[in-house]
Amino acid sequence: MKINTFPRQGTRDLSPKEVNLRNYVMNTILQTYQKAGFLQIETPAMESMDFLASGQGGENEKLIFKILHRGEKLNLQKPDLQEHDVVDCGLRFDLTVPLTRFYANKKSELPNPFKVIQFGSVWRAERPQKGRFRQFVQCDIDIFGMESILAETELVLATSQALLNLGFRNFKVRINSRLLLENLAAECNFPSQSYGKVFILLDKLDKIGLDGVEKELLAENFAPDSVNKLIGIIKNLTAQKITVSEIKNALPNAPREVLEDLDFLLQTVQNQADNLFEICYDLSLVRGMGYYTGTIFEVEMADYGSSVGGGGRYDKMVGKMLKEDVPACGFSIGFERIIQILEEKNFQIPDQAPKIAFIYDGQKQTFSQILPEVKKLRAEGKMVLLDIRQKNLGKQLNRLAEQGCTDFCNYFLDKPLEIKALTKS
Amino acid sequence: MKINTFPRQGTRDLSPKEVNLRNYVMNTILQTYQKAGFLQIETPAMESMDFLASGQGGENEKLIFKILHRGEKLNLQKPDLQEHDVVDCGLRFDLTVPLTRFYANKKSELPNPFKVIQFGSVWRAERPQKGRFRQFVQCDIDIFGMESILAETELVLATSQALLNLGFRNFKVRINSRLLLENLAAECNFPSQSYGKVFILLDKLDKIGLDGVEKELLAENFAPDSVNKLIGIIKNLTAQKITVSEIKNALPNAPREVLEDLDFLLQTVQNQADNLFEICYDLSLVRGMGYYTGTIFEVEMADYGSSVGGGGRYDKMVGKMLKEDVPACGFSIGFERIIQILEEKNFQIPDQAPKIAFIYDGQKQTFSQILPEVKKLRAEGKMVLLDIRQKNLGKQLNRLAEQGCTDFCNYFLDKPLEIKALTKS
Repeated sequence: MKINTFPRQGTRDLSPKEVNLRNYVMNTILQTYQKAGFLQIETPAMESMDFLASGQGGENEKLIFKILHRGEKLNLQKPDLQEHDVVDCGLRFDLTVPLTRFYANKKSELPNPFKVIQFGSVWRAERPQKGRFRQFVQCDIDIFGMESILAETELVLATSQALLNLGFRNFKVRINSRLLLENLAAECNFPSQSYGKVFILLDKLDKIGLDGVEKELLAENFAPDSVNKLIGIIKNLTAQKITVSEIKNALPNAPREVLEDLDFLLQTVQNQADNLFEICYDLSLVRGMGYYTGTIFEVEMADYGSSVGGGGRYDKMVGKMLKEDVPACGFSIGFERIIQILEEKNFQIPDQAPKIAFIYDGQKQTFSQILPEVKKLRAEGKMVLLDIRQKNLGKQLNRLAEQGCTDFCNYFLDKPLEIKALTKS
Repeated sequence: MKINTFPRQGTRDLSPKEVNLRNYVMNTILQTYQKAGFLQIETPAMESMDFLASGQGGENEKLIFKILHRGEKLNLQKPDLQEHDVVDCGLRFDLTVPLTRFYANKKSELPNPFKVIQFGSVWRAERPQKGRFRQFVQCDIDIFGMESILAETELVLATSQALLNLGFRNFKVRINSRLLLENLAAECNFPSQSYGKVFILLDKLDKIGLDGVEKELLAENFAPDSVNKLIGIIKNLTAQKITVSEIKNALPNAPREVLEDLDFLLQTVQNQADNLFEICYDLSLVRGMGYYTGTIFEVEMADYGSSVGGGGRYDKMVGKMLKEDVPACGFSIGFERIIQILEEKNFQIPDQAPKIAFIYDGQKQTFSQILPEVKKLRAEGKMVLLDIRQKNLGKQLNRLAEQGCTDFCNYFLDKPLEIKALTKS
């Protein structure tokens, strides 16, 4: 039988070079978050379907990979068989939904507030397309148990520090609040039951422009006065860097505490940014997920034309698992997008340990002779690859340089050992 | 609806303390292997069923978690529905089987020999029991493309170095060869078609003792002369530390190159062991998997009564994917067992960065004031947790110490900043 050796559609085999970069990025982000006092947890890949499909995951619930019952529980001959008869559990589609279960499960042992890091694979049955995978890594921080805007401030500071530590500059953190969005919709006299639809259309601003949003709102038969007022405010407030007093003018009934909080977030982060990145209001920022209840944010890298992370406050989600609501707020870095960008700009991992190719004749006797020297080099922190001498040394050295070796030594018996720099010719 | 917040049976939620230990162990092993010149790769969690259940995985193939077809491909109303009609793919049950697919897929881009590291979760639908999980981490190194015993020697040296780096001492590496086992069975005149059954019974030696093995062999109606001879040789050769010449005496027809190779492995590793661990022959070592073709090895920690790793040579496995056989050899550390042992002996992670709890009043103004100081401490490599002052400071300090904080400072406005050691009272 001819066996297909490709990974399944939408999944990837990762080469050593790719894994190296991913490890570097993961460790850089992880260390930044740990320095900010966050603690890492892990949850399993499989969760029960009752829980995964309980309505918290929005559209993602349609993309769950479902796992079959096993043994006696699987009865395929049952009349009028339905999917839930054969399905036992599913693969997680994000890290936030399992986090709420973890928190509800372990609340009594956890510090309060709970500042938490999660790194892990998630699975979604998306239609495979360039840059979109069925298994990908998410990388989240969340704070549970803090009502104050200080939670959002810590999250934005930690995430922007992680991006700075990865060498990114001039990115832009856009902030808004679901409460301001609701006030904006009220100010324009949209009917309150259709706020959701208005926000979904407004969210398309990036893709279809203000004219496009206007057209689609009118096509949905919203009152032209409402549409005009909304478009006017957005146009006015995205043309330049806006201040909190400009928002106050445009939305005179906006809740004072919301504006004060947002302004604290903006000023505090700006003071810490050292002009290396920007933070700004964006009244048109919506973010897709339905569960946000307050502040929302997104990081944008203009050079790479896309969002590289985002998050916000979701104070009502844990309450669905526990009897009480618990304030919660999170920021997710788009790990796969960050990796793509770094690969596109041919990023070189800094400060890598030297890697020496120790070339010898492949004989047992020689192997035993060189071991003490090799052990010494490794104890000094160097990576040492034992490689057997090949006929064409030039070709061999090129291959070793490609594999990431920085130095080599060509071991002949009774010669003094010499380690030379390796450069690809 | 009351939602069950426990993880699914056989899976685990990992607390910050558990994740910290796992990260430490993983990084220690990874760095050891990288220093030995191994390269890390990753394969996806999901593989096609055709491939997973192609017979290479032995008993583990019965434990595959199977994933349902999606969309139009799932037709539950088909008459006489069979499992393969509804199953699309499965979760990997080990890392070796996917590695052979990876190698066959990418061979032309990979160095030869290919020295490879894999760390990753695997899934098996085992009956849940203490210390056995349905999702667990494996941690493997393999060398593809080296026929020589130098491959086994590199694997055993790298793995024992990793265990030493984790602080383990006095463990024992037991070595044998499938070729010696076959010679032993031949020497005792067992019929060649029943070698497999003989080895399976011999493999029970640890659990049922030599008497038990004898009884079970006789119960299977093997010739008493054969059974007596086998028991005699094993008894003779496990009573003390055996030498290669004792093996030669007991098995005069054993292939000379096999014995030479085993002896090279033993001598070379022993020379490097600095009396910190042991390596010895064990003619009764079998190892379960059917795919081994030569040298086999296992690491044992007597204090913890179980194997913590093992592996061997499997020269015929890649050939099932490619047209040609490729020599291959691997060593797998029992990651979850290592973690259990370290937890049992209350292992403390060495050289952890200080973690300072920065206690303040939770006010926005104070937050802004302390940020520059906090940033400075983090830039110095310290972990700094911002924590809001609670009424009972003593209780708060205890909780912070439990969370792993080593120091604290209690910030009052206009007081000089003082960082004090934190000890649990």
